[in-house]
Amino acid sequence: MKEKLKKFKAIVAEAADLYRASEILGWDQETNMPPGGAESRGIIRGTLEKLSHEKYTSDELARLLEELESAIDQFDPDSDDARLIRYIRRDTDKKKKLPSEMVAEKAKLLPPANQAWRQAREESKWSIFEPHLEKIVDYVQRRAEYYKPYDHIYDPFLDEYEPGMKTREVQAIFNGIRPKQVELIEAISKQPQVDDSVLFKNYPKGEQIEMGVDIITMFGYDFNRGRIDEVTHPFAATMGYGDNRLTYRVDENFLNSFLFAVMHESGHAMYEQGLAKELDHTPLYEGASLGVHESQSRLWENLVGRSKPFWEWYYPKFQKRFPTQTKGVSLDDFYKAVNKVEPSMIRVEADEATYNLHIMLRLEIEIGLLEGEFKVKDLPEIWNTRFKEYLGITPKNDTEGVLQDVHWSFGLFGYFSTYALGNLISLQIWEKVNADIPNLEDQIRKGDFTALLSWLQDKVHRHGKKFEPQELVERVTGSKIDGGPYIKYLNKKFGELYGL
Amino acid sequence: MKEKLKKFKAIVAEAADLYRASEILGWDQETNMPPGGAESRGIIRGTLEKLSHEKYTSDELARLLEELESAIDQFDPDSDDARLIRYIRRDTDKKKKLPSEMVAEKAKLLPPANQAWRQAREESKWSIFEPHLEKIVDYVQRRAEYYKPYDHIYDPFLDEYEPGMKTREVQAIFNGIRPKQVELIEAISKQPQVDDSVLFKNYPKGEQIEMGVDIITMFGYDFNRGRIDEVTHPFAATMGYGDNRLTYRVDENFLNSFLFAVMHESGHAMYEQGLAKELDHTPLYEGASLGVHESQSRLWENLVGRSKPFWEWYYPKFQKRFPTQTKGVSLDDFYKAVNKVEPSMIRVEADEATYNLHIMLRLEIEIGLLEGEFKVKDLPEIWNTRFKEYLGITPKNDTEGVLQDVHWSFGLFGYFSTYALGNLISLQIWEKVNADIPNLEDQIRKGDFTALLSWLQDKVHRHGKKFEPQELVERVTGSKIDGGPYIKYLNKKFGELYGL
Repeated sequence: MKEKLKKFKAIVAEAADLYRASEILGWDQETNMPPGGAESRGIIRGTLEKLSHEKYTSDELARLLEELESAIDQFDPDSDDARLIRYIRRDTDKKKKLPSEMVAEKAKLLPPANQAWRQAREESKWSIFEPHLEKIVDYVQRRAEYYKPYDHIYDPFLDEYEPGMKTREVQAIFNGIRPKQVELIEAISKQPQVDDSVLFKNYPKGEQIEMGVDIITMFGYDFNRGRIDEVTHPFAATMGYGDNRLTYRVDENFLNSFLFAVMHESGHAMYEQGLAKELDHTPLYEGASLGVHESQSRLWENLVGRSKPFWEWYYPKFQKRFPTQTKGVSLDDFYKAVNKVEPSMIRVEADEATYNLHIMLRLEIEIGLLEGEFKVKDLPEIWNTRFKEYLGITPKNDTEGVLQDVHWSFGLFGYFSTYALGNLISLQIWEKVNADIPNLEDQIRKGDFTALLSWLQDKVHRHGKKFEPQELVERVTGSKIDGGPYIKYLNKKFGELYGL
Repeated sequence: MKEKLKKFKAIVAEAADLYRASEILGWDQETNMPPGGAESRGIIRGTLEKLSHEKYTSDELARLLEELESAIDQFDPDSDDARLIRYIRRDTDKKKKLPSEMVAEKAKLLPPANQAWRQAREESKWSIFEPHLEKIVDYVQRRAEYYKPYDHIYDPFLDEYEPGMKTREVQAIFNGIRPKQVELIEAISKQPQVDDSVLFKNYPKGEQIEMGVDIITMFGYDFNRGRIDEVTHPFAATMGYGDNRLTYRVDENFLNSFLFAVMHESGHAMYEQGLAKELDHTPLYEGASLGVHESQSRLWENLVGRSKPFWEWYYPKFQKRFPTQTKGVSLDDFYKAVNKVEPSMIRVEADEATYNLHIMLRLEIEIGLLEGEFKVKDLPEIWNTRFKEYLGITPKNDTEGVLQDVHWSFGLFGYFSTYALGNLISLQIWEKVNADIPNLEDQIRKGDFTALLSWLQDKVHRHGKKFEPQELVERVTGSKIDGGPYIKYLNKKFGELYGL
C-alpha cells in the first residue's frame, strides 16, 4: 500500500505542479507581461491546465485511488493522506462528469461575451451584453445537467468555490441577515453623516506604499517569502511554499484604494504563507474555500484594520507621516471616517454594513436565472427594483447598476456569495479568537499581532484545503457558518458610531 | 498524412510549452522570486521539464515521426514542417540515448560541486573543488559512451549548444586565429595606453537606465513586446511570441557594466523578437545556436555600440546627459576609452581583442580533460602557463584564474566556445550586411537602425532554429563559420586606434 500511496502522490504532485505553474504564469501576466505576450501566454497556460486535467482524470490515478480507498481504514481519517484521497475522489468524480466538448464550448463562448460586456458597460447599454448573457445562462443550465442529481441547480456551481456547501444553506443564512442589515442601514440613514474628507486628501504614492509595507510587516506578512507589486486589480497569489505574493494599486486622492486593499490582500497572502509545507505540490495547498479565504482578508482589513484599537496604535504614526493631511482631524474623527456607512452603487466600494446586500442581490439574480424564473432581458429592472428595496437608492444607469461586475461575462456563476460568506465567517472566527486571547484588543493597541497570527495559523491556515469549509468552520468555532455574530458586530459597532 | 502531421505538431507543442513554462518560471526566479520560494520552485520546474522530456520521448511521437519521415518527399525540404520533423528526429534520438539513471546521477552530482566551487573560489583554494571536478569529468567521460560513435569525445557536448558542429572544425577555426590575436595584443602592448578614466566617473543609476532604454528603443527593441528588469547576472529571456525580455545590472562607478551589457542583451532579445510567429510552440522558436545568438548580441554591443559612427551620433546626447562626467573628453577620447585593449584576468571583462583567447584556453582544457591528457589536479598550472603565453600576464591566485567561471561546477562542458564563435559569426554577418546596405555607416551616424534590423530579421532572426548554425551562416554569408573577417576587423580597428 505504501508503494501505491507513493505512486498516487507522485501523479497528484505532477497534476498540482502543472496547475501551479499556470498560476505563476498568471501572476506574471497581471504584473509584468507586455501586451504583445497575451496570445502565446494563453496557449501555454491552456496546455498546462489541459495536461493537469489529464493527469487528474487519468485511468492510472483512478486505479490507484480505488486501491487506496479499499484500504482507507488503515489511515487516520484526519491525516493529510486520508484527506487527500478523499479530496481527489470528490474532485476527479466531478471533473469526469463534464465532457470535453462542454469545456471547449465555454472557451469559445466567453471571449466575445467579455468583449461585449466591456462595450455595454462603456456605453451603458444592456442590449449589447444581453444576447451573450442569454447564451451563457443557457450554457450554464445545460452544464448543470451533467451534475445531476443535485438538490438545487445552483449547487454544482456554488460547490466550485465552497466545496460541499448547498444553495439552501446559503439562502437560509442570507435570509436570516438581510432584514437586519436593511433595518440597520435605514436607521443609520436617519442619523447625521460623518465627515470623511480626510480620506480624499492628497497622499503621495511612495509614502502610501511605505506605510502599507510597514503595516503588513507588523501584521506578520513575511517579505522573505513574498513580495508586493503594482497592478490594475489587486489580488494575492501563491507560487508554492515560501513564495506567497500580493499586489496593490494606489489612488493618490483616495486613501482607501490602497490602505484597506493592501491590508485585505495581506490577509489572503498570510493565509497562504501559513499553509503547511507538507501540503505543497498537492491540490490541498490552498485556502479551504473562497469564503474562508475571504474571512482572512476581511478579518485583517475590517476587524483589525478598521477597529478602534488598531487606530489607537497607528493613528499617531499616520499623523506623523501625513501632518498636513490630518491637520485638525482627531483619532475619533479618523476612526469615524474609515467606518462611514453610506449606501452606494458599486459593490467594491461598499462599507461593512452595506456590502452583503450587494451580494445577496447578485445571488438572487443568479438563482433566478438558472431556475428560469428571471429572463435576462428583465435584469436591469430586477436589479434596480431590488437595489432600491435593500439599499434605498437607484442606479442612474446600467453601468453603475447591473453591468458593474465582470463575473458573468467570464461565466462565473456561484462565485459572488463567497464574498458575503467570508464576512460572516470572519466574525465567527473573531469571536473565538477573542475568547482564546482575552487581551487581544490590548495587544492590537500596542501593535502586537503575533498571538493573533499564530492562532490563525494554528487553527485555520495550516490546514489548507484538508477540510471543507463547513467542517473547518465547525472545527474552529464550534458551529457551522452562521450570520449571527456578524449582525451582532454590525449593530454594536455602528450603533455606537452613529449613536443609535 | 495531414491528420498525422497535426497530431505530431500537437504533441510537440505540448512538449515545447512545458519547457517554455519552465523558462518563464526561471525568469521569475532570477528577477522576482523571494528567497523562500527556491525549493518549491525547483520542484515545479523539475516536474515541467520531466513531463516535457516524456512527451518528446513518447512512443506516440516516435510512431508519428516515423510515419511522417516515410512521406518526407511530400514536403518542401526547407518548409517549417520538414525542418521540424528533421529537428525532432535528431533531438529525440539524442535524448533517448541517455538512460534516466545518468540524468539522475548528474542531478545529484552538481549541487555539492557547485557549493564546493563557491567555497573554493572564496578561499582561492583549488583543492576544495578538485575532487568534485574529478567526479564531473569522470561522469562526462562515461556519458560520452552513450553517444558513440563520434569523431571526437567532445562532439556530443559541443552539439548541445552548436547543433551539428564538430570539435575538429572549432579547433581548426581557433588554431587559425589564435596566433594572429596573440600577435595583435603584443603589438598593442608596446603602444601608449589610452585613458579610459571617463568610464569610471559616477553615473547615477536612473540616468543610466533612461539612456539605455533610449538607445535600445532606437536600435529597434520593442517594449510592447518586452520589458527590462534588474538582476545580478544579466540575461535575455523569451517567454513566447510577443514577449521577449532582457535584464540588466548597474554599477554607478563603471559605465560598461550597464551600457554595453544592455546593448548586448538587447541583441539577444531583438533576435528573439524577430523569430517567426509560426515557430512559437515548437522547439524551433529559439536562436539557431548559442554561437549564432551571441553573434547578434556582439553585433549590437561591439560592431554597432563600440563603433565610431555610433558615437558620432550618440556622444553629443551622452555629453548633454552627463556634462560634468564628460567635461574635457572629446568624441575621439571617448571612442578610444570604450575600445581600450588591455589583457585582464577575467573573461567577462575582456575587450574585443583579447576575449577569444580566454575562450580558447578553456576549450583546450575541456578537451584535454575529456581526452584524458590533462589531470584535474594540474589545471591551475596549465591555466597559468597558457594564460601567460596567450595574454602575457599571470593570475595572482586561482580565484582570478582557473576558478573564475561557474560553468564546470554546473557540468557545462562544450559551452564556452560558443562565445568566441559568436564573435566570428558577427563579423561574417557584418561584412555581408555592409555589402547589402552600402551606406549603413551613414545610417548609424544618424541613429537610424531600421534597415540593419530589418536585414537581420529577414536573413537571420525569423528562421529560429530551423537551420543548424553552419547551414544558417552559409545561407546568410555564403561561407561556413570562418575567423578571417574577425581578424581583419581587429587588425583594422585596433591598428588605427593604437597607431600600429
